[in-house]
Amino acid sequence: MPRLVMKFGGTSVANVERIRNVARHVKREVDAGFDVAVVVSAMAGKTNELVGWCKEAAPLYDQAEYDVVVASGEQVTSGLLALALQEIGIPARSWQGWQIPIQASEAHGNARIVDIDGTAILKDFEERRAVAVVSGFQGVHAPTGRVATLGRGGSDTSAVALAAALKAERCDIYTDVDGVYTTDPRIVTKARRLDRVAFEEMLEMASLGAKVLQVRSVELAMVHGVPTYVRSSFDDPESPNPGTLICDEEDIVEQQIVTGIAYSKDEAQITLRNVSDKPGVAALIFMPLAEANINVDMIIQVVSDDSVTTDITFTVPSAEFERARTILERNRGDIGYGALQGATDVVKVSAIGVGMRSHAGVAARAFKALAEKGINIRAITTSEIKFSVLIESAYTELAVRTLHSLYGLDRA
Amino acid sequence: MPRLVMKFGGTSVANVERIRNVARHVKREVDAGFDVAVVVSAMAGKTNELVGWCKEAAPLYDQAEYDVVVASGEQVTSGLLALALQEIGIPARSWQGWQIPIQASEAHGNARIVDIDGTAILKDFEERRAVAVVSGFQGVHAPTGRVATLGRGGSDTSAVALAAALKAERCDIYTDVDGVYTTDPRIVTKARRLDRVAFEEMLEMASLGAKVLQVRSVELAMVHGVPTYVRSSFDDPESPNPGTLICDEEDIVEQQIVTGIAYSKDEAQITLRNVSDKPGVAALIFMPLAEANINVDMIIQVVSDDSVTTDITFTVPSAEFERARTILERNRGDIGYGALQGATDVVKVSAIGVGMRSHAGVAARAFKALAEKGINIRAITTSEIKFSVLIESAYTELAVRTLHSLYGLDRA
Repeated sequence: MPRLVMKFGGTSVANVERIRNVARHVKREVDAGFDVAVVVSAMAGKTNELVGWCKEAAPLYDQAEYDVVVASGEQVTSGLLALALQEIGIPARSWQGWQIPIQASEAHGNARIVDIDGTAILKDFEERRAVAVVSGFQGVHAPTGRVATLGRGGSDTSAVALAAALKAERCDIYTDVDGVYTTDPRIVTKARRLDRVAFEEMLEMASLGAKVLQVRSVELAMVHGVPTYVRSSFDDPESPNPGTLICDEEDIVEQQIVTGIAYSKDEAQITLRNVSDKPGVAALIFMPLAEANINVDMIIQVVSDDSVTTDITFTVPSAEFERARTILERNRGDIGYGALQGATDVVKVSAIGVGMRSHAGVAARAFKALAEKGINIRAITTSEIKFSVLIESAYTELAVRTLHSLYGLDRA
Repeated sequence: MPRLVMKFGGTSVANVERIRNVARHVKREVDAGFDVAVVVSAMAGKTNELVGWCKEAAPLYDQAEYDVVVASGEQVTSGLLALALQEIGIPARSWQGWQIPIQASEAHGNARIVDIDGTAILKDFEERRAVAVVSGFQGVHAPTGRVATLGRGGSDTSAVALAAALKAERCDIYTDVDGVYTTDPRIVTKARRLDRVAFEEMLEMASLGAKVLQVRSVELAMVHGVPTYVRSSFDDPESPNPGTLICDEEDIVEQQIVTGIAYSKDEAQITLRNVSDKPGVAALIFMPLAEANINVDMIIQVVSDDSVTTDITFTVPSAEFERARTILERNRGDIGYGALQGATDVVKVSAIGVGMRSHAGVAARAFKALAEKGINIRAITTSEIKFSVLIESAYTELAVRTLHSLYGLDRA
């Protein structure tokens, strides 16, 4: 039998009624002839409740115990979905990370999947065509025998990794939207659902702010070549829409230059004014930040008003803003700068498309279009298949809509 | 270091604030020099919520999946208590049934503990004096690797079994009452807290309706000779009351004839009128009930009004009443009886005391006292250390108070 991995997120399993609905989606695929493994998240809101309790018990909580507490959420859903499947006549059993096992690294709270042993699940497929209902987001660190969770959104990663381990034909990620869009439909009403998107494009979109899939799950799908669909669990289980297929670039026939526009508000800008323009000053600034695990993204350097020193601007994740500022102030003597200016009212807007590889001047057109709308660009980064601009956050919607139209992504 | 097992039930861990309070109780014992294992139940109300979801997902639910869902409740508490202990500077880690492992039988939903391997916990005691926070109520069935729960109140059993496995000095069961009383204080205001009660007495009390401890946990404590305290988690953690010690008969210096009065409303009475008084008729009545796993308790047989046939009266658990009636009606032809009469408005009142062994006429005094109050006795059973009477439930309080005074149990 061909194999299929299906994954359902928190809103898709928010209560028992929705879990029953998920069971109907699974039944459709079983009836279609697939051996099915289903990966489930915790019921919507559960993980937040559990995290809240951990923080209440110990503000600086031990990640290993945090993992024990939060992993219980997926455990509940897996048992309930197995029951709901049995109730409509489908053999099913739940599997926790430690039972399969899904081996994970020891980085509690943010572990990586090390290995998945699919033997027991495959045996259950063979013997009684039982659906395997697998708790997402969790594994076991074999040397200690302790539960390790994969971090927020980790169930996507569980699903793709399981699909690779079981050599599944594809992996269907069910969520509360019906696919991947050219941009956020809440901002651009003319956003279109994409039929197909390349792994690399999806990776950039996820990294640059599109919240539809966890970045690591896309990496894994790309590495293992797992065709992955993003589709809606709120469709009629009898006749659902296919959603968006994430696949190899070669499998996309009609390639656009730009596939999508993403934006991220999780950015903060730091400017150091009047930095003495001596060799090695960049290292003095960025080494301490790197040592503190703070990810610096865009960097620009311009000559200061005094024509002697320079101003250096860069971005960090907004969650790290205060920490970065503290470190830089502590190192002020070593670095030697006039003033530190910070801004959190900034947004990074990005255009992504594998077609950029073969087309020149794609970004230049954007700079012109944004300038015409009076939008000031504070920083730019580019890579082979994307470019990003940092702008004032008040212009987010205008900038996204402008680029969406510019690259011909608007729905007719 | 001497070892101690402490157990906290659902109301003692109902929220994070109470879990912090439990941590203070544990700290006291760690400071007193004990290596401590703590067994915890699910937060009050959680198990009912989880059971409700199971029933909603599948009215006739698979017990193995039910176990996966409900065992998550204890998992959450164990992680949170470990965090709360760490927060006050006490090394601690949580242990799930499968991690220790606590091996259980395959009777999902009502499994028995088969074996507990204390090695890993003892190692953690030795290396860093870490408190072991153990999820109660759950084990793992080794051949299948699946979670198996011990049935309602199973955390008491987990605690006593763990105390035996770790060779603990004693087992403290913390609950929302401060010990074992001579009878239900809600009925008899003069009920006294017992300082000590013999294992066998406690076993009878638990079997006969006192809800303070699960019957199986008392059996286990008796078999392994684990001194077990029942005490309150709502006492001041700095200076708690000792509670009631359940111990060997020989360790109780001042033995009463009657130690306590219990009552149970979970009884139903069935009377078969005009049963033909032929050999083997009792087997015809009771064999089908035994085959259906219905526990028959009190049996009395009296000559009928017609002086030819007999009337047979017996009791069954009220939850089995309808099933018993159906079976008897189906077998009416074989048995041969005139009419079947049932009553659920009955209560079984019992007096328990190891002193009965050496004193004659203890029960006879009760029959007289109850008769003087106009209470009609419908059935009687006796054993070496207890006797029970079946009466109309309207007389419950009167009967309990009468016996409590009769045997000198009233508080001065």
